[in-house]
Amino acid sequence: MTELKNDTLIRALLKQPVDRTPVWMMRQAGRYLPEYRKVREQAGSFLNLCTNPELACEVTLQPLRRFDFDAAILFSDILTVPDAMGLGLYFTEGEGPKFKNPVRTVEDINKLPIPDPEVELRYVVDAVRLIRKSLQGSAPLIGFSGSPWTLATYMVEGGSSKSFHKVKGLMYEQPKLMHVMLDKLAQSVAAYLNAQIEAGAQAVMLFDTWGGMLTSEDYAEFSLYYSKQVRSLLNTTINGQPIPTILFTKGGGLWLEAMAEAGYDALGLDWQTDIQQARARVGDRVALQGNMDPVSLYASPEIITEKVKAVLQKYGSGSGHVFNLGHGILPDINPDHVKAMVDAVRKYSPAYHQS
Amino acid sequence: MTELKNDTLIRALLKQPVDRTPVWMMRQAGRYLPEYRKVREQAGSFLNLCTNPELACEVTLQPLRRFDFDAAILFSDILTVPDAMGLGLYFTEGEGPKFKNPVRTVEDINKLPIPDPEVELRYVVDAVRLIRKSLQGSAPLIGFSGSPWTLATYMVEGGSSKSFHKVKGLMYEQPKLMHVMLDKLAQSVAAYLNAQIEAGAQAVMLFDTWGGMLTSEDYAEFSLYYSKQVRSLLNTTINGQPIPTILFTKGGGLWLEAMAEAGYDALGLDWQTDIQQARARVGDRVALQGNMDPVSLYASPEIITEKVKAVLQKYGSGSGHVFNLGHGILPDINPDHVKAMVDAVRKYSPAYHQS
Repeated sequence: MTELKNDTLIRALLKQPVDRTPVWMMRQAGRYLPEYRKVREQAGSFLNLCTNPELACEVTLQPLRRFDFDAAILFSDILTVPDAMGLGLYFTEGEGPKFKNPVRTVEDINKLPIPDPEVELRYVVDAVRLIRKSLQGSAPLIGFSGSPWTLATYMVEGGSSKSFHKVKGLMYEQPKLMHVMLDKLAQSVAAYLNAQIEAGAQAVMLFDTWGGMLTSEDYAEFSLYYSKQVRSLLNTTINGQPIPTILFTKGGGLWLEAMAEAGYDALGLDWQTDIQQARARVGDRVALQGNMDPVSLYASPEIITEKVKAVLQKYGSGSGHVFNLGHGILPDINPDHVKAMVDAVRKYSPAYHQS
Repeated sequence: MTELKNDTLIRALLKQPVDRTPVWMMRQAGRYLPEYRKVREQAGSFLNLCTNPELACEVTLQPLRRFDFDAAILFSDILTVPDAMGLGLYFTEGEGPKFKNPVRTVEDINKLPIPDPEVELRYVVDAVRLIRKSLQGSAPLIGFSGSPWTLATYMVEGGSSKSFHKVKGLMYEQPKLMHVMLDKLAQSVAAYLNAQIEAGAQAVMLFDTWGGMLTSEDYAEFSLYYSKQVRSLLNTTINGQPIPTILFTKGGGLWLEAMAEAGYDALGLDWQTDIQQARARVGDRVALQGNMDPVSLYASPEIITEKVKAVLQKYGSGSGHVFNLGHGILPDINPDHVKAMVDAVRKYSPAYHQS
């Protein structure tokens, strides 16, 4: 494989010295880019875009052509794994993802297979191979998956939810059965991420979008426990190169100490969590990724610059910070505002890395 | 006024000794009760129900006829204050509250009046008087308002929001103007709560439903600062009786230490916050209200009982705990499950109050 010309992200995730803070953005390949919307239209549907390695590769690379990002992130959906388990993922206009065959009963759970990523998720693994090759070492490629708990919420609810009534019902009424399901998901997610690593992903991130809807106790038992299990099953060295790992729980700011013990190299922070306090709480155990308010990208470039400076200053000196938003970029942001953010990180971050 | 026969709630909020943990429930007067749905239908609309003191009184009292609650809470909407400021509150089926005249410009903000509660909000104050009289001292009456920040979100967005794009835009672009608006809201909310206290409310609660959408810094500057200002303007003694105050920020678990310094007697906790850790963090400064997961009320009565026992045990011994959900009860809960919760609090809480 080609040598990595820009390893700032990898070094920051491993808390090795860097000369500036690396920056990328959750959902950086997405609807706010006119070139993305064009390919999306050409694909006919969001799922067609995800399942076509050439198109997925194209939209993954688009943001790196425009902006000085320090990483590419695989373009895919977080629900590919349940789809590969036979749930039948589909999308309805304005209502988000849905499953034809939601999981509700003992039988549903017992028959859930652990997919072979090179078979049922081959389109993702092929996309990873193609993107890695196309990047030609210009930036590292981040692979990702939804966390077992987050996947379980969609699988039981049958789609998005506000109250998580059905999945919590299963968790409260039949905790053992819920554990059977989460254990299968942890194995499936680990195999999926290992296949991405094998295919060329140079870092991996676990998205626990809905862990923050749980009580502290249930988060530990039903979400973090399985994120930890995924981590323990990952092959995080390939050809002598370490593959850094990132755990992101939206709404997880209360539980950072426990998250820092889960074996991941870095924690993603949502925008509500103060990154200075977070750093004090986790100490040297993990790097931190985040955490500008995604909504601040609606503001003027001048204000965006101030917000970037504030986040950099709050993290402070030394390595271990990856600049990012606290959640995905919103679809109607002006791309010029993203440029203002990236430029500000480039301009103001070196001051925090002088030895 | 009639003497209060059950002052358990008041005593717990003031951290005075009690012989059991008092219990009430956010949105206890609401759609999960068939008798509520009947009155709501009779009223023709939700707003008619809020603006008719007799009907508001009737639905406020309904849950106390069914369950051993230790408090009544005024039935009203959190958006009565902006409506009284001339924004024109209305409701559309399935879309929640909306305003005919949202606040967007300097002119909009400069012309916002501070309503006289005895004039523009007379229907609420009359409802308080009638409920207080009808309760005949059987339980204390809690008055409430939305917090300045939470009211501002609806006023600028024109209704509910997911990203809070418009209100945060105003906050980021024109922070001084946002402060002018929040200052007017703090004065209006304080006058409104004082009128409720004058009319008979025996405790008051400030609902900061959307404070948790802010960064830590913005929460301190744009939400908590004004909750504090409201508190400083309240008349919290009436005829020698203290009127305890409660501050609830949904998603505010990260900021409890700062909230505990805002002058309120008690903090409401959402279900994500561990009440044992919360108590350790706030020490003796405030009482705590909460915080069972509202979704656990879908579970069987046996499991509800276990969840109640877990919350009681986590808070531990001594006064200063008011049992509640971590957010409002969901509209399709079986009332028998509420009974299971209340019964469990009655049965298992006295053990934590033996001297």
